[in-house]
Amino acid sequence: MNLPYLYSKLKPSYRLRSIDEIYAAPLTCINGVSSSTARNIELAYRISTMGVLFKNLRNIYAHFNYLDPCKLFYPSFDPGPNCGWQFLFSDIPHDSFPAANFRKEFGPVFYRGRLDGTARVMVVGQDPSTDEALAKRAMVGQAGQLVQKYLERVGIDRSYIIVNTFAYSMKSSGAIYDTLSESAGIRAYRERIFDKIVTENPLQAIICFGALARKAVYMWGRAGAATVYNLTHPTAPDTAATLSDWNSDFDNIYERVTPDVGLVRTRGFRYDIDFHYDVDLAKIPARDLPFGTPEWFGTGGTKSKRDTDRKIILSVDGGG
Amino acid sequence: MNLPYLYSKLKPSYRLRSIDEIYAAPLTCINGVSSSTARNIELAYRISTMGVLFKNLRNIYAHFNYLDPCKLFYPSFDPGPNCGWQFLFSDIPHDSFPAANFRKEFGPVFYRGRLDGTARVMVVGQDPSTDEALAKRAMVGQAGQLVQKYLERVGIDRSYIIVNTFAYSMKSSGAIYDTLSESAGIRAYRERIFDKIVTENPLQAIICFGALARKAVYMWGRAGAATVYNLTHPTAPDTAATLSDWNSDFDNIYERVTPDVGLVRTRGFRYDIDFHYDVDLAKIPARDLPFGTPEWFGTGGTKSKRDTDRKIILSVDGGG
Repeated sequence: MNLPYLYSKLKPSYRLRSIDEIYAAPLTCINGVSSSTARNIELAYRISTMGVLFKNLRNIYAHFNYLDPCKLFYPSFDPGPNCGWQFLFSDIPHDSFPAANFRKEFGPVFYRGRLDGTARVMVVGQDPSTDEALAKRAMVGQAGQLVQKYLERVGIDRSYIIVNTFAYSMKSSGAIYDTLSESAGIRAYRERIFDKIVTENPLQAIICFGALARKAVYMWGRAGAATVYNLTHPTAPDTAATLSDWNSDFDNIYERVTPDVGLVRTRGFRYDIDFHYDVDLAKIPARDLPFGTPEWFGTGGTKSKRDTDRKIILSVDGGG
Repeated sequence: MNLPYLYSKLKPSYRLRSIDEIYAAPLTCINGVSSSTARNIELAYRISTMGVLFKNLRNIYAHFNYLDPCKLFYPSFDPGPNCGWQFLFSDIPHDSFPAANFRKEFGPVFYRGRLDGTARVMVVGQDPSTDEALAKRAMVGQAGQLVQKYLERVGIDRSYIIVNTFAYSMKSSGAIYDTLSESAGIRAYRERIFDKIVTENPLQAIICFGALARKAVYMWGRAGAATVYNLTHPTAPDTAATLSDWNSDFDNIYERVTPDVGLVRTRGFRYDIDFHYDVDLAKIPARDLPFGTPEWFGTGGTKSKRDTDRKIILSVDGGG
């Protein structure tokens, strides 16, 4: 659901309430809906709360023009980059990514999230893996779902843009990737993306996950008004250390970012010494994924694996 | 490239020329570009033909405002359905497709091509397979590439909308699928899609590939002004019979449809007794596929296969 649109249609006294409270609220919470209008809607359609309205809005829309179901419910997917971003993405210097170090077959993965100038947080990760190659979006596998949950807990469930240090998938690891990250072609192109994000978005925070992301943002050095936070990558071997690091920055980020409307965040939340995959993973929102992506993709961990460099195996969770 | 936009910007005498002729033409073929303007562009940028202009338009756009590169080159992918189509697609009666007969895991696949009211041809196929599940678009594997080439040869390379008899993948074949195709839920929903296509598009031809498609369109019976052509499915066992069937309708379809601008079609083309995969496959255009789809996908045959019902293996052509 397009919550910014929804909240813009509510009476001021309702705009700071959680989406759960809005679901339970009477239709009179909508700007312009009087108690008599609400009563007529209830008599005609048995719709008395916003939650029921959302389920039936498409059917009664002709008689209820206070909320546009197109704007409220769609797009429920990410249509892809606008023209300006397409220009920049199409400029990627493919040859600056050596085939010896990067998997080129499935192409680059550029982003996930808002390209429309509404991002308050920029997340920088490392490189895309197989789920990312299939979705053509960054951070959609297990690591991405752990990061997504962290963002939700500090108060951001949509106003982010996620990019990686490398748009291509790394074939291995090690010092060579520090060198490649600093190489002219890769660095200059990555920084054109960082610059465009900072220029077009009211960024409050830049959150780097992993050493490569930290170095990429440090080298760049043009964070502007945004505060830079350096967190350990969720896949780092010592999870206890990772989570203590995530905990140590939690309150700072929580205080720094304006939360997304309708989101209930968790002040003072602290991770345990290990991830609990039943609660520490968040579903990658459909609004971040291409049209037609199955519901189970982007939830419950990574769904695909690499067989050889030139094969990707996609399995339904629990599938044979 | 957005050819309808390009041709709309050309002087009338150039509007019926092929795109290859336009590439070779001088800049004066553009409406409003005088010979002196063309001369200045050539002196300043060494750009004297449209082909060279296309390569450099983005860089000189600030000084050459006769063609908008955003409109000319983007989107170079299919962003997905608009709101009205999303409403209809989200209404699919999932439970009308029995899990015993259809693969449900990867979700339905609804369409490929134009949803914007510019389709002159509706293509009806059978059901989506693995490449279709990955692209979330219909007819993108080998069968789709054979159909794509047939459409190009009769004169249509973009003004089509492709849908299937079944939005879900069939687990087997046989008479049961005739019964399922006629079952209330599946039939009624499919016909809502057919009706919306006929209502919104200036259809000239409806081309059915395979017996299930033919029956689906026949049962529906509301083709309106469009002529219905029933062709054998490209995967039918007797290829010689299939191609003689494709040949027998070729000229009729060729005469019936208005060709897409800038496309050179082949009057009186005839297939051999077997497919020649070097010339009879057409690349599925990037404009039909989601953002980020690799170049090799939708070309050179089917790129993925099903391991078990719950796995899809995607391989780069020739990959290990």
